Parts: sequence; structure tokens; C-alpha cells
Amino acid sequence: MYTSALVTDFYELTMMQGYFLNKHNPQVVFDMFYRTNPFEGGYVVFAGLHDLIDKLEGIQFSDEDIEYLGSLGMFDPSFLAYLKDYRFEGDIFAIEEGTVVFPSEPLLRVHTNLIEAQLIEGLLLNTLNFQSLIATKASRMALASNRGSLMEFGLRRAQGNDGALSASRAAFIGGCQVTSNTLAGKTFNIPVAGTMAHSWIMSFSSELESFRAYAKLYPDNTVLLIDTYDTLGSGIDNAIIVGLEQKKIGKPIGVRIDSGDLSYLPRVIRKKLDDAGLANAKIVVSNDLTEEIVQTLVHDEVPIDSWGIGTHLVTGGSQASLNGVYKLAAKLKEDGTIVPTMKISNSFEKTTNPGIKQVYRFYDAEGGAIADLVTLHHEQIVPGKKYTFYHPFAEADFFEMLSERYSRCEPLLEIRMHQGKRVGEKPTVQAIQAYAQKNLGTFHKSFLRQINPHIYKVSLSSKLKKLKMDLLVAQRRKVKEEL
Amino acid sequence: MYTSALVTDFYELTMMQGYFLNKHNPQVVFDMFYRTNPFEGGYVVFAGLHDLIDKLEGIQFSDEDIEYLGSLGMFDPSFLAYLKDYRFEGDIFAIEEGTVVFPSEPLLRVHTNLIEAQLIEGLLLNTLNFQSLIATKASRMALASNRGSLMEFGLRRAQGNDGALSASRAAFIGGCQVTSNTLAGKTFNIPVAGTMAHSWIMSFSSELESFRAYAKLYPDNTVLLIDTYDTLGSGIDNAIIVGLEQKKIGKPIGVRIDSGDLSYLPRVIRKKLDDAGLANAKIVVSNDLTEEIVQTLVHDEVPIDSWGIGTHLVTGGSQASLNGVYKLAAKLKEDGTIVPTMKISNSFEKTTNPGIKQVYRFYDAEGGAIADLVTLHHEQIVPGKKYTFYHPFAEADFFEMLSERYSRCEPLLEIRMHQGKRVGEKPTVQAIQAYAQKNLGTFHKSFLRQINPHIYKVSLSSKLKKLKMDLLVAQRRKVKEEL
Repeated sequence: MYTSALVTDFYELTMMQGYFLNKHNPQVVFDMFYRTNPFEGGYVVFAGLHDLIDKLEGIQFSDEDIEYLGSLGMFDPSFLAYLKDYRFEGDIFAIEEGTVVFPSEPLLRVHTNLIEAQLIEGLLLNTLNFQSLIATKASRMALASNRGSLMEFGLRRAQGNDGALSASRAAFIGGCQVTSNTLAGKTFNIPVAGTMAHSWIMSFSSELESFRAYAKLYPDNTVLLIDTYDTLGSGIDNAIIVGLEQKKIGKPIGVRIDSGDLSYLPRVIRKKLDDAGLANAKIVVSNDLTEEIVQTLVHDEVPIDSWGIGTHLVTGGSQASLNGVYKLAAKLKEDGTIVPTMKISNSFEKTTNPGIKQVYRFYDAEGGAIADLVTLHHEQIVPGKKYTFYHPFAEADFFEMLSERYSRCEPLLEIRMHQGKRVGEKPTVQAIQAYAQKNLGTFHKSFLRQINPHIYKVSLSSKLKKLKMDLLVAQRRKVKEEL
Repeated sequence: MYTSALVTDFYELTMMQGYFLNKHNPQVVFDMFYRTNPFEGGYVVFAGLHDLIDKLEGIQFSDEDIEYLGSLGMFDPSFLAYLKDYRFEGDIFAIEEGTVVFPSEPLLRVHTNLIEAQLIEGLLLNTLNFQSLIATKASRMALASNRGSLMEFGLRRAQGNDGALSASRAAFIGGCQVTSNTLAGKTFNIPVAGTMAHSWIMSFSSELESFRAYAKLYPDNTVLLIDTYDTLGSGIDNAIIVGLEQKKIGKPIGVRIDSGDLSYLPRVIRKKLDDAGLANAKIVVSNDLTEEIVQTLVHDEVPIDSWGIGTHLVTGGSQASLNGVYKLAAKLKEDGTIVPTMKISNSFEKTTNPGIKQVYRFYDAEGGAIADLVTLHHEQIVPGKKYTFYHPFAEADFFEMLSERYSRCEPLLEIRMHQGKRVGEKPTVQAIQAYAQKNLGTFHKSFLRQINPHIYKVSLSSKLKKLKMDLLVAQRRKVKEEL
């Protein structure tokens, strides 16, 4: 799959040329992480990784791309020649796609030379930020619906064609069962669904005729849209007529409500369907649903079987972006010595964690995740030992993870690409979805609560905390000296 | 340009097959319009049209697409054969891209057969909704900056690759001068810009060395990022050293501030630059800017020359979608008779306007737009006559557009595609931008105000109002009879 390497911020290219012409191209390690949880929630479902790997395997500059860059008059022929032959050759370590993750822990590390580490920043962040945002939103919708049947209908109001396509993938991972986006169905092999719009009904001379025509054509997939003219009048009455006709030939129906009060209407319609002998007819609702609306309706026990969710799912709704960043964590000297680096900010929350790092997740005896520890990558963290968990920046804030408090711990970052090639098999989107749902299940629901969740702790190991503080002090001294 | 016709909601395909097998495929007219203004504002900049035309010219089902649909087991071979040869053959009438538009007026009409009118709904809405949202946001940012220099930096937090690419196009039309997205620069021939990230500075052994290396390489484009270590300390001091060196060889510099207080820092930095003799050095700011922040800083006369805006521009920020819809407005009988149709909703604002329609914009003697009138397409609206402007749904709410109140009026919807081919030349994105900026200039700024704007009136002609009311009454009678 060709991915244009021009999906990059222009400053990456100007910097890359600087490194290239100055022959300054050390091996480096960049971290990707995010800073704050979206939707006022407590977590993110990490998504987009295997899509990103596909893209990195195919990233290159076409002849046209090179010609375009040449036309800008800023690039040396030797640099353009380098770009022409460029293929991604780095290593990627990452947490598995579908894992529940938390602020400030590294989700992915890129080990490569400085030039290509810069090149891929935009593509990497664009892919991971957006898909993680939407997988998280979908998981929240799934939790709000008490894991009811969720259908993603977002194409028409998504942010561009790919804002729809990759949203369908991420929404499926987060917990949707189907998409309306046919291209997403084909591209990711996820189930597609959809029956009729108001225009179907309006194109016939009567509503009843339109319902009958549909049931005849799709007897196994008859979901009748009942709110075109009069939901509680002709709509449900005609649906019941067709439902009884279908029942005679052993086929089910469903009804969809796309307007009006979604608490009142399903109750009345459920009773009408039941009274007519159509107890197995499903009720589907749609119409600008948000997770808050879904939660309220579920809380109120409104008889809804399935939810069609569009805009607020595929765009993130109230929050349209995840603030994932990509920061230099280490440089390697020619002899292989690791030189940890960090971005020091006037706001301490934005100061990064230096060095090549690993994340360990600790579990209690019931398999519940209890806390994450960010360590230096070579630290050996094994069950049965006591570890001190340090707050990322607050002084004298730590707790002891005693050996009896946890029964298992595991490193989350694993190698996913080696020298530009995927390591291992590419999982199906179904497998990623299954993994994500299982992973969500390892967290007590207090951590997943929609509002005001219990804060899951992400701490630093003593070695990492010491490194960070030492570098901070050294840097502050150095700046003073330079002044 | 091949565009997969699978960029469509699955229900379109199930409906299409229904029409195809039932040989029910009348000529129809669909309208695209939106219902409420985004961002609590008073208008939308209509965008995406020429991009949509490109896509419609290339829309088709590849062999793979057909194979995929076949694999679902729901489609008849005859229907799949029809899809295999399918090309868009409809007519499109639309308001020109870049025009300022208002709720409920038709922005675009599709005249074609029912089957293909359904097929393109998702692609059409996806393209127009998103690009109009972002062009509108960009125009608001431009107004907030008092038409200062705006740079779009949104790639890394945009909604997917195309959420970035088409956002760059729309942001440019709305009033941005440059993008950081290199692929957008190539694809749409718009200027790209960008200089250095913090990682550039951190990759050198000193900040000064990193600034010098950059200035040497890009003497005409040296914008130094000064907040890596200490903005008001080493950052600005090193920038001044390099600025003075560049001044000797007749080259300018700029500085960029990406953190800290954006009201305080530019004032101090401006003074330092001026005192050092670098009065022509530009100050660029970035860091999660919103239109509200931009407006406040401009209001406070902070000395900022250029704004780098990312996330809140390319995603819409607080509002991530435009609620554009696509509704059946008319069917044509075989003899060509027009049968106006409408969607009747329990909420009167959602009841659509029936028939094939035109929009006339009325201007005062100074060329200022004063009101829009939605008419039936065959009505002749000419200057010098009096017209009654009816409220879209409120009873007994109208005003007289006397001949002395306006000096000019013009129809906005023109033919843009005929039998599947573009009519006229495709304008460049630059031309669309210029047109949009000029069109914004025809509105008194009270209509464009960020908050609580003056509401621009969109009214119905007497003929259209009568048709709408007649159909409404007839439909309500018909529903009652069916019950």
C-alpha cells in the first residue's frame, strides 16, 4: 500500500534537509504519549497501531512528490535524491492496539535515525490520535448502552472521507458491532448494515406499499423506518401489518425511530408490537444520539434493542481531538551509549520523561489491573518483589507496591516493527476488537466511569524518577551558565 | 481520479437494489441544505463543491468493490452488473464554492434518477459538511485576527489523513494563508510553511548553534523557535544574536513562541527585538489557539504578526460537524411533470421546502447583501419590482422588499455539472479563496460577528410558501384518511 510521505508537516522536511546536509543523523528514540484523558473520562483505548504499521510499510515519495518538492526551490538535489529512495527502516515498540492506556505513559517508541523519526511524526500522530479518540468514544457509548447493540452511522457528518473510514475501524474496535460505511466494510472486513431512509418511503405512493416492497426484497433484514409521516399512527400500524405478514412466513421484523421523544415512543411501540404478537420485533433508535442520551435511556429502562449512532461517535462530539504528542526521549552515541533527553517546560506537567522506557501493568489476584509503572527499558520488574511507585512530578509523593498487593505484572511495550517490517501477524480488526473488550474487562468499572472516574495511577520507577530529576537539575544549571 | 462508490451508507445500496429490481427509477431532485449555523455564529462559508465535482466525475465501483458486494449475499447479479458499469450522469446545480450561505436555503440540487441520487448522498454530505464547517471556522479565525496572517498547522490532530488534507483546502478558502501539510500543498497548490520544532534545537549541543545552522540553511525563511529552554532568557537572546548576524547580510528573521503567556511574552519580546535594532523581525505564536484566544489577543493589541493554528481549526474545535442534510424535493413524472415532495416532521423547523428551488440574494445600493429569497426555480425575480418575503414556517410573518430597498438581486444556484461532467473551468483554490473573501466583504460585519450575530433573513417567495402550505395540509389530510 503506497502512502505518500508528504503526509508530513513541512517543517519536518526543512529540518530533515538540515540534518542530511550537516550529516547530523544520530540514532534516536521518540515516544508517543498523550497528556489528558478525553471526554472528562479516565482512560483511552489505544487504537490505530496496525493501520499505522501498514502505512509505514508503504510510505514513500513518488516521482510526483519529489517533483513537487523540487518545485519549491528549497531543497538540494542530493537531499531530493535521498528522499526518492527513502523507505521506512525503523523499529517500533508499542502497546498492543486495543489496550486501555493512561496519560503520560509511553504508548509507542520509535527507534531510528533522526531524519526518519521526524518524517513520520505527522502521519503517526494523525493516525493514533484520531483512532484512539474514536475507539475511546465508542467504548464509552458501549458502556453507556450496557453493551447493547451499537451501529455506527457516521459517514455523512464525519471529517472527510478518511475521517469516516478510519472512524469506522476505530469505532468497531471500541465496541460497535456494525458500520453503515460500505467502504469500511470492505476495507476492514467488518459487518455493514442499514435498511431504508425516509426517501424510500416517500418514493412509493404509500407507506404500506414501501414497507411491503422492502420486506419482500430483504425478508431476513427488514427494519422498517416508521417516523416518515406519523410514528404512532400510520408508521407503527403499517409496520405491524407487514410484521404479521412476515411472521406467517417465519421472518422477523424490526422498526427504526429516527425522530421524536426516544423515551416515550419506544415504550408505546414496544407495547403495540407485543400486543400484536410481535414480541421478537426489535426496536432501533437513531437521531443525533450522544453517550449522555444513551445512558439516560438505558438508565430509564426504555425498551431499545439497538442504537444507530453517527456524528457524536465518529467526530468525538464535544471533544474532537486527542492531545497525543511525539517527543525525543533519547539519542544514541556512535558507540551505542544512550543519552536520555527531555523537553523541559515551564509547566511541570508538560516536562517529559527521559530515556528509553517500558510500562509495566500490575494486576491483583482476581486479574484486575491496579496500577502502571513506567520504568527504564532495561529494568527487570518481576512478581514477588516490592516496588516503589513515584509520582511523575510531585515531590515526596510515592507508594509501595508490596509483593502481596499484586500477583502478576507484565511489560506492555513490545516490538511491532523491525527495520521497517511488521513483526508477527497482522491481527484482524475482529481480533483487536475482542482483545479491547477483554482488556476493558480487566479494569474495575470505577476506572471506566463516564464522569468523575477513579484515577488510575501511572507512576515512575525509582530509577526513572532519579534520572528525570538529575537531568532537570543539570539542565537548569546549564541554562543559568549560558545566561 | 477514481473515487470508490463504496463511500456510501449501506442502506443506499439496499434501497438502490430495491428501485432497480422494481424498475422504479424516476427522475428526482434532491436538495442539500443545513439547518443551524455552527459555532453559535450567523453564517457558513460554503466549501467542498469543486472537490465534490472531481469525486463525482471519478466515482465508480472497481472490480474489487463489486466482488466485495457480491460476497455479502444480498445483491442480485443483475444489480451488480448494473453497478459495474455505473458512472455518475446527473446534473448538479449549486451555489458557487466560497459563497456565504445561511440555514435552510438550498445550497445544491441534484437532478438525476433516484438510484444514483441515493448512491452519492454520503459522499456529497461528507465532503460538503466538513469542508464548509472548516472554511467557516477559518473565516471566523481570520476575522478574529483582524485578517492577520494565519497558518494552518493541523495535521497531527486532524481526524484522519483526509480530515487533515481536505481541512487544509477548506481552511485556505476560509482565509488561511498557508498550511503545514505538505501533501495539501502539492494536491491543492497552496503555499506550505514551517521551520523548526523543539527537536531541532534539542538535537544540537546548544540552542545558539541550532539557530545558526538553520539561518545558514534557510536565510530567507528563518523563524526561530525560542521557547525550548527559556523564552525570555536564552531563547530571545540567542535569536537576537542570530538576527543581528542575518541583518548584516540583509536577511530577516522571525521568532516563534509555542508556550507560556501569549499576551505577556510577545510584548517583552517585541521590545527586546526593537531595542536590538530588529524592528522588522516578525513574531509568530502557536500553542492550541482558539478563535476566542486570537480575538482576545488582538483586542489587547498584543504585537503578534502571525498565528499558527492547528487542532481547533481543522476539527472545528467545540463543534465538530455541520448538520447538512440531503432531502428529496421533487419527483418528475414520465411526461416531465414536476411533483414537489417534502419531508414533514413533527418539529416544524425540520419540515423541508418542496419543489425545485432557486435562491436570490438581494443587495442594497452600496453592494451590501440584505436578504435571501428562496423561490421556485421558474420564478422570474428581477430588480425594480416589489417582492413579499415570507417566513419559512411562522404564520403571518412577512415583510415587503420594496423596489427602492434594493438595487440588485441575483440567482445563486447555477449549473455546475451536466450529465456527469463539470460545466465550465475548475477554479483554482486561490480563486475560490479570493471569491470567498470578497463575498464575506459583501456582508455587514454585524452578520459575521463571532457571538450573537445579527440574523440574516432567508425567506420564501409567495409561490413557494403557498406550495409548502398546500402540501402540508394535503399530507395531513391524507394521513388521517389512511388511519
